Parts: sequence; structure tokens; C-alpha cells
Amino acid sequence: MILQPIIDIASVCAGLGLRDVVLSPGSRCAHLSLAMVRHPEIKARTVSDERSAAFVALGISLKKKKASGIVCTSGTAAYNYAPAVAEAFYQQVPLVVFTTDRPPEWVGQQDGQTIQQQGLYNGHVKGFFQLPVALDHPDARWQMNRMVSEAVNLANSFPKGPVHVNLPIREPFYPQPEEQMDFPPVRLIQESASERRLPAGLWQVLGNEWDRHERVLIVGGQQQQDSEIMRKLSDFLESKNVPAAGDVISNLHADSRVVRLHDSFLLQNDLEALRPDLLVTFGLSVLSKPLKLFLRKHKPDAHWHIQEEGPVADTFQSLTRVLRTSPEHFFGEGVRHCSQKPEVFNDEWMRREENAAARQEHYFAEQADCFAELPVWNRLIKRLPESCDVHLANSMSVRYASSLGLSAAQGNIEVFANRGTCGIDGSVSTAVGAAMSTDRLTVLFTGDLSFFYDRNGLWHNYLPENLRIVLLNNGGGGIFRMIDGPARQPELEEYFETRNPLTAENSAADFGMAYYFCGNSLDLEKSYPEFLERDGRPKLLEIKTEGPVNKSVFEQYKSFITQ
Amino acid sequence: MILQPIIDIASVCAGLGLRDVVLSPGSRCAHLSLAMVRHPEIKARTVSDERSAAFVALGISLKKKKASGIVCTSGTAAYNYAPAVAEAFYQQVPLVVFTTDRPPEWVGQQDGQTIQQQGLYNGHVKGFFQLPVALDHPDARWQMNRMVSEAVNLANSFPKGPVHVNLPIREPFYPQPEEQMDFPPVRLIQESASERRLPAGLWQVLGNEWDRHERVLIVGGQQQQDSEIMRKLSDFLESKNVPAAGDVISNLHADSRVVRLHDSFLLQNDLEALRPDLLVTFGLSVLSKPLKLFLRKHKPDAHWHIQEEGPVADTFQSLTRVLRTSPEHFFGEGVRHCSQKPEVFNDEWMRREENAAARQEHYFAEQADCFAELPVWNRLIKRLPESCDVHLANSMSVRYASSLGLSAAQGNIEVFANRGTCGIDGSVSTAVGAAMSTDRLTVLFTGDLSFFYDRNGLWHNYLPENLRIVLLNNGGGGIFRMIDGPARQPELEEYFETRNPLTAENSAADFGMAYYFCGNSLDLEKSYPEFLERDGRPKLLEIKTEGPVNKSVFEQYKSFITQ
Repeated sequence: MILQPIIDIASVCAGLGLRDVVLSPGSRCAHLSLAMVRHPEIKARTVSDERSAAFVALGISLKKKKASGIVCTSGTAAYNYAPAVAEAFYQQVPLVVFTTDRPPEWVGQQDGQTIQQQGLYNGHVKGFFQLPVALDHPDARWQMNRMVSEAVNLANSFPKGPVHVNLPIREPFYPQPEEQMDFPPVRLIQESASERRLPAGLWQVLGNEWDRHERVLIVGGQQQQDSEIMRKLSDFLESKNVPAAGDVISNLHADSRVVRLHDSFLLQNDLEALRPDLLVTFGLSVLSKPLKLFLRKHKPDAHWHIQEEGPVADTFQSLTRVLRTSPEHFFGEGVRHCSQKPEVFNDEWMRREENAAARQEHYFAEQADCFAELPVWNRLIKRLPESCDVHLANSMSVRYASSLGLSAAQGNIEVFANRGTCGIDGSVSTAVGAAMSTDRLTVLFTGDLSFFYDRNGLWHNYLPENLRIVLLNNGGGGIFRMIDGPARQPELEEYFETRNPLTAENSAADFGMAYYFCGNSLDLEKSYPEFLERDGRPKLLEIKTEGPVNKSVFEQYKSFITQ
Repeated sequence: MILQPIIDIASVCAGLGLRDVVLSPGSRCAHLSLAMVRHPEIKARTVSDERSAAFVALGISLKKKKASGIVCTSGTAAYNYAPAVAEAFYQQVPLVVFTTDRPPEWVGQQDGQTIQQQGLYNGHVKGFFQLPVALDHPDARWQMNRMVSEAVNLANSFPKGPVHVNLPIREPFYPQPEEQMDFPPVRLIQESASERRLPAGLWQVLGNEWDRHERVLIVGGQQQQDSEIMRKLSDFLESKNVPAAGDVISNLHADSRVVRLHDSFLLQNDLEALRPDLLVTFGLSVLSKPLKLFLRKHKPDAHWHIQEEGPVADTFQSLTRVLRTSPEHFFGEGVRHCSQKPEVFNDEWMRREENAAARQEHYFAEQADCFAELPVWNRLIKRLPESCDVHLANSMSVRYASSLGLSAAQGNIEVFANRGTCGIDGSVSTAVGAAMSTDRLTVLFTGDLSFFYDRNGLWHNYLPENLRIVLLNNGGGGIFRMIDGPARQPELEEYFETRNPLTAENSAADFGMAYYFCGNSLDLEKSYPEFLERDGRPKLLEIKTEGPVNKSVFEQYKSFITQ
């Protein structure tokens, strides 16, 4: 028996632009899955491990900049989505989570694959929709159609995020083989986005406040590459003489005026001269711990945060104004309302930046033969192709990137990282999903813990040829050795690093990836160019280093840079 | 700085008998983890993937029959526990879940590894305890001590289950290396269990009701092996002439009077003669779908369910009485209050059972050379050592076992399966945790989907030598081929079976397991005895069969048995 209202879910999704769906196998979800598979405008893929499936979808949404969908059967399948759902919520990535469920009367009756799915993800979704189980009444069919439209719209509206649709289904689960599935036109509720602009009167107030502060600093948090923001911000910086700082995940590196080495030079001591009177921020989380600590210690008198909607984090404990508009509008309009500042403060920031850059260059020139993670990292990053996507796993990979930054010449490289919740649970899957959704080379940098944790992100039949994984294998959780606390505990090796002797060679073989192993600089020189080449196969480059060496080199670097 | 109230958590746990803790690495949890590691009465192990870590602990709790603990850092780490928490809830396995958290003031402030952890597992825990963040005031220290006692007691009291303790922690996370950790005596709240007995007056009522029903059937749901229940039930059956049926997961197979092949013979058509007037049940979920469907179709006039406390499922839609006592009390006392029944009804059940057993034997004798899953399964099960533990993964493994049952001679074999939620997400880890907690040979039977899904259950440094994994690899989700619905969809292979060519050879190499591959009966004859041998290494036996053959053989078997 074909259940047309369930088939229509696929049509509503497709009609509202949700064209990618990641399925996980199950019987309860068969009807909806088949509808997704058979809909001519939807690309469906199957990933067996639901934890990975959800992160793959998150990667797809990131690249497509609109919601993708996930569909699973009932029970703990739905709970395995939870880590990706939380990441999507805090990273503001649109995602429509379809969980199929027992009919309500069978919940708690010791039937298999049954948990309490209603409201499963608590406050980690933008909305929860319980679809009707009985579809005989036309009002129920109306409700179903309406709710699916609402869910897709809600996921895609600012701030984007995950939405949960729970769909209870009674048997039979499968259509008869001779039954045709048709996709007749369905009613769609199109939701149009609006631009939020600051009123003229407020600009007056802001202009005055801006004038009162001599030293203004702009800080961009995590965001995707956006040429419009970049252009408006560049014009603004050009004319106002104010410094801007952006972590590697803020994707602001294309403009050479944007400070990128603060994670290194803010480790120094004499920072008072860098204190802003007014701090202006936009975007999501800030990566650099030195920057966060610096701003919390040297608090600005005023802090404006630019964000169209939603709760605002008081990350630096100094927030005084929330500006409900977009960064492109703020910088675009601000050019006319904000006065130019004297050069001295901007010069101070740029001097530190240039100094750090020079010391960095000097340091790595001297370490040209050193085969520890940091200098190796530097060599790898510098030789990336001009145009590609970089994914950074938590947490040493993202820390190295934060220390070293990208150059303005690498403006066509976009950087991704799961910094919504900073988990190590989905880095591989997210990169895989993103790689599926672009022709660009997609390079994931990951440590061994993150890699093996999420190995199931490779366990399916869709590994794209443009996927590259650089695995920095130091035989355990290298980050714990880097941090002073655990490094001085006698239990370091067993309980923090969790030393494991695994290499990825077997995994690469399992998943049909070309595999390169580098134990020294010579290996790397030989392998890296071939690794980056496009020849129809996904590839994995494993770089084996020693935890204690990595630690001492990183410390040496930090002390060199802060001298 | 040593935070004594956090150290004391380990002392309370140990004092109340919680002696096994599975840690996952992190900084936020370092203080509590170190306390667990250093406490002389606690055995701590580290498993990196939190999803697996929680299932490993569930396996430990199952074997130890008391709560074990899990400790993780903040963020999605806690969410990765969720599948095991739900399984523990529905399977009633005691588990104390310690999640460490940001202090409340930092939740939602775009700080890393932060989600909304309070009440994270919704209705899937028996209780939630939010520990205090500020420990200066003596009342806060009293609260902490009290809550941890309460949590451990709650997990271990009937119905056993998971309890969530959320512990917000401010920096610094690590004690100084020169600081000693002391474990001074702590106050403990010991909770004593009670026996719930039915009052004499009620027994009169029950005795009268029992007399009124001619045909009485006893059905045991999932439970662990319990010699006391077994003895009381056997005496009861002996004297009352009533049939009892128990799935393989009811662990009632030691008594030859207990019907075990109902999953096969209830596929027949003429079942009216088997309909009970009164149904008496105890234990958790029933595995056999034919048994469930039979009882829902041929409803008894009355249905008594024996369960000391907690919500009772109306699995057969016929529940009329909830008896708030234990099965051992019911059968022990019932001997005196329930009358003997005429033999005819018991004889009818036993006749079907014996007939099914004979046909089964005949069938497998004829299939001695057939290398499909079902006959292979039969050979493997028959040759298990006399005393061992068997773990069954969802879902074909548990279905084969349900079809074939265990013999009374195998009364010293205990059977485990995650049938609380019937997920495929933790079978490997659960078996690993259980194997860690016993000297008995522990044999997991699993399909390839379940195995690869939960491969991270093997990713740690504690694989016990008594662990055996029998991997039935049919290159995909064989169950979907077995079910009529998906088997007839053109999308079967890509979207349901999710065909994958993986073998476990590389995984076995990664995790240091002895590996045996069987592609035919000869291989099996050669490998199986060596596979079962104890020689200091965990072992994996991979049996490669073809999905379509497995399907036709299982169908052939079912049609043979129902003739």
C-alpha cells in the first residue's frame, strides 16, 4: 500500500530546495526512504552508521548552504544522530532530521527499537514536529504537508540549524512491488527571508559612540567564506584605520589587513597597548584561546555584537550592544557613519602581526628538516593548491591551523571545522559529506583519535575522488601531552593519550583509498605532490610522528615567537 | 589543587560497590577520572569512543549484576553515551553516567565542548542529579556526597537502570603533580532492598482465579540466568502440569520442560488448541514475533504479569493483573496456592515442541553440508563448550538463535542480547565489557552490519583473551533480504542491504585478534575447534556466506518445520 502523504514529504522537501538526503537502513523508515530515493529531484545516499550519516549530511549542508535531510528508523538510530544535531545547532547548519517512530500507542510496550523519540534532542533543535499517525482525515494530511514545509523553512531561516520531524508509522512498511510511486504536485509554503537593517536614528547613536572610542578592534568569529562580507569589510577597514582579527575559521584571510597570527603573538606579555576601547564582533565562536583570554583580561569599554537574530553569547564578558543586522549591512552602511581613526592603534596591531610573521618565517626556515607535527603542518598548508577546501578536525589540527593561519594569497581556500561543539566525533564524516558536494579538492587534517573515532564516515559506497585525508598520527591523543596538566600526571599515557598503535593502512585498504605513509621528510617530499593529484581515487596520507617530539617543538615555537 | 569533594565521589562509588569505571579521555573530566584511576578499590579502563565506552560499561554491569560507571568530558561526548543509556534503561541494567560539564554560567556562551547537558537523556534515565559547581559551603559538599550515594543506590534498585550525574567543573582541571590524592573515609548511605510478597488474602483471590482457568501458559521474557527462579519455576511446572515457553534470551532453557521452539512451530496455522485461558508472564521483552502475534491473535481471558515495581508493558494487549512481587516468590508460594491442571493442554504444547525438535533434527541432518547461515549457525551453537556466555547481536543473529533455541544440556550457557532497544549500535562493545568481567569464554555472534557499526568497541588496550567473535558476513544487512517487503523493492541492494565488500581481516589485524576465515564447511571444521581454544588471544571467526542462499535456506527451513 502506497501512503501518499508520506510520499508527498519528498515532494515538499524537493520543492523547497532540500535535494540531498542521507538514509540509514531500516524497515520503519522504508516508505519515506523509498520516496526520497525515487523522487527525481532528490539525491539519496545510504550510510549505515547513523552517527556518521548525520555528520555526512551536515557536511553536505555546509557546502550547499541549505538544508539536507537525514532519515532513520526508530529507536537508538535516532539517538545516534544526536552529536551531529548538537553540532549543527551550535554551528548553525541547516539540517532536517526525519526520525521514523512506532505509533504512539506502542511506545513503552517492550516492542523492539522503541525509545521516547518525541522531543529527543531537547534544546538542540530549532523546532520539533510530531507528524500524525492516522492519515485518513484530510486535516491530518493538511497537518503533515504544512509541518514538513514549516520544518524545512525553519531549518533554512536565520539562524540556520537542525529541525526534528518525528514520523510515527504503522505497518505495512513496504509498498507492493507492482505499485507505482507518483509524485503529484504538492502545496508548498515558501518563506522569504528579509534583510534586517538598522534604522537611521540608531546609526546616529552608533556614530556618536564610535567617535567617543579611540581604539576600535573588529573580531570575526567562525563563518563560511562570503565574498560580500569580505568586500564590505575590506572597504570598511581601508577607510577607517581599525584593525580586524580573524581566526582561520573566520575565513577572512583573503584580506591581508586582517590579523591572523594573534593566536601566536597574544601569548606575549605586554598586551596593554592592544586593548580596544570598543570591540565589534560578528560571526560564531572564536577559536583562539589567547585572543579570548586577552579580551577577557583587557576588557573593552564597549562591545557591539552584530547578529540578526537569536540568543547572543557574551563570550568576552563585555557585551554592551547587540546590533540586529547582518555584518555586510553593518560594514556597508558603517562606512558612512563611522569616522576614521588615527593610525596608531591599527599600526600597533599590524606591527605585532608583521613581527610574528617574520619570526614565524625565520623559525620554519631553520626547521626545514624537522619532522615534528608543527613544521610538517606548515609545509603541508603552504603547498595546498590555490583553490580547495580545508577541513580541520578537533583538536590539535585546528590548534595548529589557528597558530599558523593562512596567507592572503590563499584567499581561495575555505576552512571548515566542527567548532559548534568542538567534538571529535564527526570530523571525517563532515569532510566526506562536504567533498560529495563540491568538485574542489577537499582536504581533511586530522589527528589519529578523531580519525579512528569517526572511521565509519568512510564506510559506505560514495567516497568521492576529491577527498584527501592528512592523518597526523602520534599514536594517541597528542593534545593531552601538549597541555601542562595531564602531561604531568603519571597516568598520561594510559588514561589521557590512550596510546594506541593503530595505523590507518588497514582502514585505507578497507575503504579503497590510496595510502601514503610518511615517517620522515623524504617520504613527505615524495608523497605529497602525488597525494594532492587528482587521479580518480580518494587518498589518505599518514604522517607518523612522536608525541614527545611534537610537544617540545611546539613549545620551542611558542617561546621563539613570543621573544 | 586537589578538589576533595570530587575525589570523594570515587570513595562513595567504591563504598557502595561500584568498582568498575570506563573513562573516556578529556580535560574537563580529568579530576574525576584521576580519582577513579587512583582509588585502590576501583578498576578503571579507558575507551576513546564514548558510544562504545558506554556499551562496554553496560556489558560489565550485566556480568557483575551491579552498576558500573562511565566518565566523560563535556559536550557531544555525553550525547555519544545516549544509545547505551537508552539500552540500559529498557534492559534494566544499572549504570551510573558521570558527565562533566562547563559551569552553568558558560553554557550557551560559544565556549567549546558545551551543550545543554542537564536532563540530556530525557526519560531514558531513572534519575538526573545536577551536582553543585561551588563547593566552598559545607552544604554543597553535603549535597554532593548525598547525591552520589543516591545515584548509585537508584541505579542498583529494582527496576535497575541508568542514572545521570552531571558535574560542572571550573578550571584548573588537573592537580599539581606533587599533590597526593587521599581517600579518607566518606559517609555512605546504604540502601537495603526489600522483598515484595503478595498478602495471604490476595493469594486466595489468585488461587480462585487460577482454578477457574483450565488452560494456563507461562511465558518468560528476557532475563539473566537465575538459579533461584529456575528452581522455583521447575518445581512449579513439575507439580502443576502447565506449559511454559521461554525465548533463548529468557535463559530458561536448562529445564527441558520449558518450550523453546515456539518461534518455529507457532508459524503453523492450527494454533487454536494452544490458546491459554490464563497467561502468566514475567521478565522483560519477548523476542519471538510468532509468539507475540499468536498471543495477540489468540488472546487469553486473563493475563497476569509478575513485576515488583515500575511501569508494566501490555505487550499482548490482554493484561488484567499486575502482581507486585518477584517471579521466585510467585512460583515459590504459588506451589501451595495454585491447583494442578489436567494434562491435556501441557501435552498439546509439548507435542508441538517435540515434533518441531524432531523435524529440526531431521532437517539439519539433511543439510549437514550446506554452508548457509542457518545450518552453520546450528553447527556452531551445538558445539559450544558446556559452560560459556553467548552474546547475540541484532538482528539476524538473535533471530537465528530464537528459531533454534538451546538444549537443556546447555543449561550452563547464559545468553545476552541488547533487546532493550534492539539497536545494532553496541553489540561488540557489550560483549567486550562482559568478557572483561568473567573468566568464562564469551562468544559474540554478529552480522557484518552490527560488527562494523560498533568496531570501536575493540579500539582500546583491554581486549580480553576470552573474547570470541563469530562474524556472519553476508556482505550487507541480510535481514532486509529476509523480509518480504524490502526484498521485493528494486532498491534492495543499494538502500537496504547497503552491500559492502568489507571483511574483518584488517580489523582483526588492527586489534591484535587471531583471525579465521571460513568460506566453506571444510574451513569451518578446521577452524572452529582452534577458534574456541583458550590460548591467550582474543579471536575472530569470519564466516562468509551469500545473502540469496541464506534467504532461500531459511525459507526452506521454515516451510519444512511448519509442514
